[in-house]
Amino acid sequence: MDRETCLSFDRQDPLAAVRQEFALPDGVIYLDGNSLGALPRQTAQRLNQVIAEEWGTGLIRSWNAAHWIDAPARIGDKIARLIGASAGEVIVADSTSVNLFKLLAGALRLQPGRHFILTESANFPTDLYIAQGLIELLDGNHALRVVERGELERALDGSVAILMLTHVDYASGEIHDMRRLTSAAHQHGTLALWDLSHSAGAVPVDLKASQVDLAIGCGYKYLNGGPGAPAYLFIARVLQDAIRSPLSGWMGHAAPFAFESEYRAAAGISRQLAGSPPILSMLALEVAVDLWLKVDRPEARKKSMALGDLFIALVDDSLRDLGIEVASPREAPIRGSQVSLRHQEAYRVMRALIDRGVIGDFRTPDLMRFGFASLYTRYVDIFDAVSSLRDVLITRAWQRPEYATRLTVT
Amino acid sequence: MDRETCLSFDRQDPLAAVRQEFALPDGVIYLDGNSLGALPRQTAQRLNQVIAEEWGTGLIRSWNAAHWIDAPARIGDKIARLIGASAGEVIVADSTSVNLFKLLAGALRLQPGRHFILTESANFPTDLYIAQGLIELLDGNHALRVVERGELERALDGSVAILMLTHVDYASGEIHDMRRLTSAAHQHGTLALWDLSHSAGAVPVDLKASQVDLAIGCGYKYLNGGPGAPAYLFIARVLQDAIRSPLSGWMGHAAPFAFESEYRAAAGISRQLAGSPPILSMLALEVAVDLWLKVDRPEARKKSMALGDLFIALVDDSLRDLGIEVASPREAPIRGSQVSLRHQEAYRVMRALIDRGVIGDFRTPDLMRFGFASLYTRYVDIFDAVSSLRDVLITRAWQRPEYATRLTVT
Repeated sequence: MDRETCLSFDRQDPLAAVRQEFALPDGVIYLDGNSLGALPRQTAQRLNQVIAEEWGTGLIRSWNAAHWIDAPARIGDKIARLIGASAGEVIVADSTSVNLFKLLAGALRLQPGRHFILTESANFPTDLYIAQGLIELLDGNHALRVVERGELERALDGSVAILMLTHVDYASGEIHDMRRLTSAAHQHGTLALWDLSHSAGAVPVDLKASQVDLAIGCGYKYLNGGPGAPAYLFIARVLQDAIRSPLSGWMGHAAPFAFESEYRAAAGISRQLAGSPPILSMLALEVAVDLWLKVDRPEARKKSMALGDLFIALVDDSLRDLGIEVASPREAPIRGSQVSLRHQEAYRVMRALIDRGVIGDFRTPDLMRFGFASLYTRYVDIFDAVSSLRDVLITRAWQRPEYATRLTVT
Repeated sequence: MDRETCLSFDRQDPLAAVRQEFALPDGVIYLDGNSLGALPRQTAQRLNQVIAEEWGTGLIRSWNAAHWIDAPARIGDKIARLIGASAGEVIVADSTSVNLFKLLAGALRLQPGRHFILTESANFPTDLYIAQGLIELLDGNHALRVVERGELERALDGSVAILMLTHVDYASGEIHDMRRLTSAAHQHGTLALWDLSHSAGAVPVDLKASQVDLAIGCGYKYLNGGPGAPAYLFIARVLQDAIRSPLSGWMGHAAPFAFESEYRAAAGISRQLAGSPPILSMLALEVAVDLWLKVDRPEARKKSMALGDLFIALVDDSLRDLGIEVASPREAPIRGSQVSLRHQEAYRVMRALIDRGVIGDFRTPDLMRFGFASLYTRYVDIFDAVSSLRDVLITRAWQRPEYATRLTVT
């Protein structure tokens, strides 16, 4: 596998033109779209319009005239199309963590007598923390049951209220079988809640086909919504009117501007809104979601699998005996749009690599993550990234002392 | 009082030049900064930079290099200076509603055996709703005690865990005596929580002098942070390490990037963070707060009182026998930076007024609110606004049928 072959893949790539929709810096190979998606070119222009025209000139009138008030449901409906949900089943609000709290709290009340939230130890930490915080707040009758990945199905029983899992593992990229695990949960009367943060825009998700009850996800990774973009949540239609949000703010009231003294939950998914949404960040997310809706998504998945396979092949080929181990599934169908490599000095190696313009990230204790955003990652980027990594390892460039100090965000 | 006199007030106004810092549309008199503050001119430029350079070019590196990770605490420290708090006592996060939930939940646990959250019936509805939602979630041992404004002190006793009030009434603009009520609460061992949404940027607030325990507030009104700007919360230093957030997301963890499996709350105010913050909206807020920090705030308060007094004088003078009643305190020291007028057809009158370029808002059932943002409202605006209102009333322009239909956001 040589560089010229990779360039020929790019020439044949049906998604090659989509890269032009992104403003990517020169001299950088960006393989961290799984952490913060790149900037769509349309975003700056749209935000200028939102700021100058809608806010500056429209002022308060834009809540109606520019349809700000509809943005959470409107963008939710668009995201629904990316994850196999129906219009009215998804809403954009708050952060992934806050949305998880709402759904766990709301769903636990549908499951009286069931004491456990079941999850796996490798779940993304904030999901564990949020469940811990909720349980601590409640009446002392609930607990988190944390098991290893392989034990999940055996740990399901009639005492489990909710099975809470992240679809694509943030560290290894391994994909859970959403359909099988959801079905297993349902056999025990357990509700299934999926975190799609590393799924939407990365791998196919069909919530309806998998009969998923609840889901959450973030806007700032593969969706390219911008730093800290608002998150979304999904509730299957049949459950919506049974699930109350404990964060019962006015935006989720049946009539927010009636200023009634008692909370009356809005019908459907809108009751999951709490306070006023951050419109600038939210409308930046909409630009990015609109871009996704124009893309051939099966083609995007095909490409992301090919990019991952190419990366692994090049690693196998050129990084032998350099202390590197592939820490992600080798089988593309069960691998998200990322490949993680294990190295004893992963943190320092990644710092050195970033200094050479190849941006991935580090996950404790010893993983380097490389994300492949099929909308803007080229095959030649993969080739060049592995070459740079080889160079960093061979020259031991990572041993420079400045790479030993930890940055706040890794 | 004639127009020329108002123009002379503007010529003498020491804050007149600050208006140039805002991008205000031609032909509009904007008296709704109490609902959505106007756009600071610097905001568009700064957001362009954030989008193009920090996100577009810096990408994931900007969490460190552009100090995004510090934004919640950094902007919180700046807001602290506006409300008489110390650095480290305020953090920017989530929405006002979500922040209220966190503080109520956290503070109730400091008050075992106390069953009530005390508030007034006229409190802003979302504050009531959030308290109701929390109480419903908890163990059945808590309740909301809602009394009339004048009954608050008598309703305090050893069973009240938290006194929860909005400092400036959203409808009437009446200001509570924060110091007296906080002191009364403390005499009963009750914690005092103040909603500053209509206070910061409108009236002086000195949380430290008033010995306030907890506070929340929004960024999008008088602070001019933009539509749905992130909110802030305050916890007096002495209480910070005792108050856990029930929304214990990773951003409030002592070591978010250690990816530990158990939640460990960060020290101090940072533990009140939950998920990733919406950076675009947050950095727009920072521009606006920076502008406030350059302003002579006692002068701003002096002007806001003068604007309100002028408005009331003109209403008294020119709207007699037109069905209008002043629904705000006539005494400037107990009035926020707004004046509300009562009229039987308030909704339709306000719609007609907005069509003439004078923007206030309507609050059910019969109030027209006019906010005076001392950074950009001129004395002549007040004169012209009252003239337009007189015209609408005299010509009965509000009777046009299109004004009878209700818009979603009022």
